Amino acid sequence: MNAHTGPQTAPALLRSDVDGVATLTLNRPQSRNPLSEAMLAALSEAFTMIAGDRSVRAVVLSAAGPVFCAGHDLKEMSAHRADADRGRAYFTDILGRCSAMMQQITSLPQPVIAAVEGTATAAGCQLVASCDLAAAGSQAKFCTPGVHIGLFCSTPMVALSRNLAAKHALEMLLLGEMVPAPEAARMGLVNRVVPAGEALAEAQRLAGVIASKSPATVKIGKRAFYEQREMGLSAAYDHASAVMVENMLARDAEEGIGAFMDKRPPVWES
Amino acid sequence: MNAHTGPQTAPALLRSDVDGVATLTLNRPQSRNPLSEAMLAALSEAFTMIAGDRSVRAVVLSAAGPVFCAGHDLKEMSAHRADADRGRAYFTDILGRCSAMMQQITSLPQPVIAAVEGTATAAGCQLVASCDLAAAGSQAKFCTPGVHIGLFCSTPMVALSRNLAAKHALEMLLLGEMVPAPEAARMGLVNRVVPAGEALAEAQRLAGVIASKSPATVKIGKRAFYEQREMGLSAAYDHASAVMVENMLARDAEEGIGAFMDKRPPVWES
Amino acid sequence: MNAHTGPQTAPALLRSDVDGVATLTLNRPQSRNPLSEAMLAALSEAFTMIAGDRSVRAVVLSAAGPVFCAGHDLKEMSAHRADADRGRAYFTDILGRCSAMMQQITSLPQPVIAAVEGTATAAGCQLVASCDLAAAGSQAKFCTPGVHIGLFCSTPMVALSRNLAAKHALEMLLLGEMVPAPEAARMGLVNRVVPAGEALAEAQRLAGVIASKSPATVKIGKRAFYEQREMGLSAAYDHASAVMVENMLARDAEEGIGAFMDKRPPVWES
Repeated sequence: MNAHTGPQTAPALLRSDVDGVATLTLNRPQSRNPLSEAMLAALSEAFTMIAGDRSVRAVVLSAAGPVFCAGHDLKEMSAHRADADRGRAYFTDILGRCSAMMQQITSLPQPVIAAVEGTATAAGCQLVASCDLAAAGSQAKFCTPGVHIGLFCSTPMVALSRNLAAKHALEMLLLGEMVPAPEAARMGLVNRVVPAGEALAEAQRLAGVIASKSPATVKIGKRAFYEQREMGLSAAYDHASAVMVENMLARDAEEGIGAFMDKRPPVWES
Repeated sequence: MNAHTGPQTAPALLRSDVDGVATLTLNRPQSRNPLSEAMLAALSEAFTMIAGDRSVRAVVLSAAGPVFCAGHDLKEMSAHRADADRGRAYFTDILGRCSAMMQQITSLPQPVIAAVEGTATAAGCQLVASCDLAAAGSQAKFCTPGVHIGLFCSTPMVALSRNLAAKHALEMLLLGEMVPAPEAARMGLVNRVVPAGEALAEAQRLAGVIASKSPATVKIGKRAFYEQREMGLSAAYDHASAVMVENMLARDAEEGIGAFMDKRPPVWES
Repeated sequence: MNAHTGPQTAPALLRSDVDGVATLTLNRPQSRNPLSEAMLAALSEAFTMIAGDRSVRAVVLSAAGPVFCAGHDLKEMSAHRADADRGRAYFTDILGRCSAMMQQITSLPQPVIAAVEGTATAAGCQLVASCDLAAAGSQAKFCTPGVHIGLFCSTPMVALSRNLAAKHALEMLLLGEMVPAPEAARMGLVNRVVPAGEALAEAQRLAGVIASKSPATVKIGKRAFYEQREMGLSAAYDHASAVMVENMLARDAEEGIGAFMDKRPPVWES
């Protein structure tokens, strides 16, 4: 970065692709990587592009600087209190866009793995909860502190309460206290705690494992996971069975099972 | 207590309010604080009063004596086997009242924090599971032992299975064994285990933290938590987003966010 | 076993009843106890018989040999790729039968307890997740490795995701890695980890505890558990309250509560 390109002219979100793994990096470290309008737009655009990009087999979501993500941009939001409607239209729009972006992660064909160092706060914590998997450095912390400023973390709670036991989620939401990475792992918010500074490497390692699998199969499975979990047991079995029949008839299952029985490595459809 | 007022003439439930925290104490220690008709009525009445009492910002649910709560009053219930209908109408009524009281905790605007020393059994265990948060002394124990007496803990299972993993809930229900506090914490039934005798102080400390927040905000968030968790992901986001817009437009969010940006303490609407 | 009866002529599934506990043993150790057509049929038939057998009060599901269960029989399935429809009808049928068998466990009046030594893979892991309780030897391992062979473990995910937190389930499904017994216990997939070789004894001990209870009561409770967990809170309470009224009016509750108040052992209806 030189004198001509300050931090705010650098892209809000970086993308770097290596061996089928796209690493996205929140890139507003000076302002603690808030989910500003610009960042939401950048994330949404990146997920839209990745959804249609067959070269990407797994995604890592990382952040530059000492803070993972501080949540919504309160200054940007508060400025709209001066609007004629006191901000109602703006708040509705920005929260709708944020919720849509979070659901893009869930509906993305490729798995998304959070790599968390530093603090993931409010909608930043929601971002971690919305990912399929998460790795955290040992000094990472998680927090839904909206209750401190009169604005309950109601949209973050949607993702949080689908990851954690009820009392754990309510504890985070009602107290707004920092949860250290090891406790977050015990609660189910992150999968792995690694030494500080190694979350990105661990997330990329997990992404690399997934990238070695059949992309068509991973896509089928991820989608079925989120679909069936909203169904009753019997409907879930009907749905998953139908999904598995199609999967069995797809080219990569024939190749994969054949390779397994022949004791050779499979070659997936790209 | 003197010779003129025996234990059964003391109130079944005590209430003591300090700094916005109402502490309710089950007060039938000699009979192990059963959820008798009188106790259910006292709890229900207390929650109704607290729901409309703007001076109360958090509730602690505690118990006098060595047993937290032994569950339903089996003697009282069994007496109704002599009724013309063998007790059907009575059992229907008492279980309906008990279930309604448990749901009053969930729908109460103020968070409710259980403070458990000794044993919480059957509907007593359900009472803990129904609270938003729970602190337990290290010697506290939890148990759903209905299976031992031919009466499965079916209503307690409703609250239990919304706090615990399926196999943990089934283990408690099918075996009816005592679960020590540290294991209850691992399972998600309680949030904190503290040294024996300190559960009340810890629950009151947590209640104090919550009481320092905006009551309107806590009310919005608690209600939204229980509403959204029964919805699918997309509907939950629509609901939580709408809730958060209203929260953002409310007075305490404007004050809280303003105070945060000005680095001053917020002053909540009382 | 003598020269005239090789391992494939031995029954696929063994059953041994002791003191109200039926122990089923997957008995194809040489082929790693796959859920072949024959094994599925044997399990389904055994559960149908046990469902109507009032002498059985609890079931233990165990396996012969070093592997608990390797999941579907891939050779058997792959042979049907030669069918005119490339196997569609066959795959639909076998997955439907497998899903039905898994749901027989859930709807069986008697609790089913898995006793796991060695590895439980894919539908074999689903089998453990489908049981009401599970005990594992310390060297047992759990795995949903379909992703390695292009066939996502979509039907196993139905049972898995109803036992584990979302990120834990997705980790197993997306990475396909072996999960050691202690980690499986932390995740909620098994209730108890015991020294290697003692899973069967522990499962039978737990089954023995359950077998000493009222069978009618256990049946009522198990059914209500799976019914109410698919309902919203209010409907769940209405249902569980109605169930508990009927339970209270049943013979074994009167006997059990009477015995408890009289401090004598209850005598259950057989």
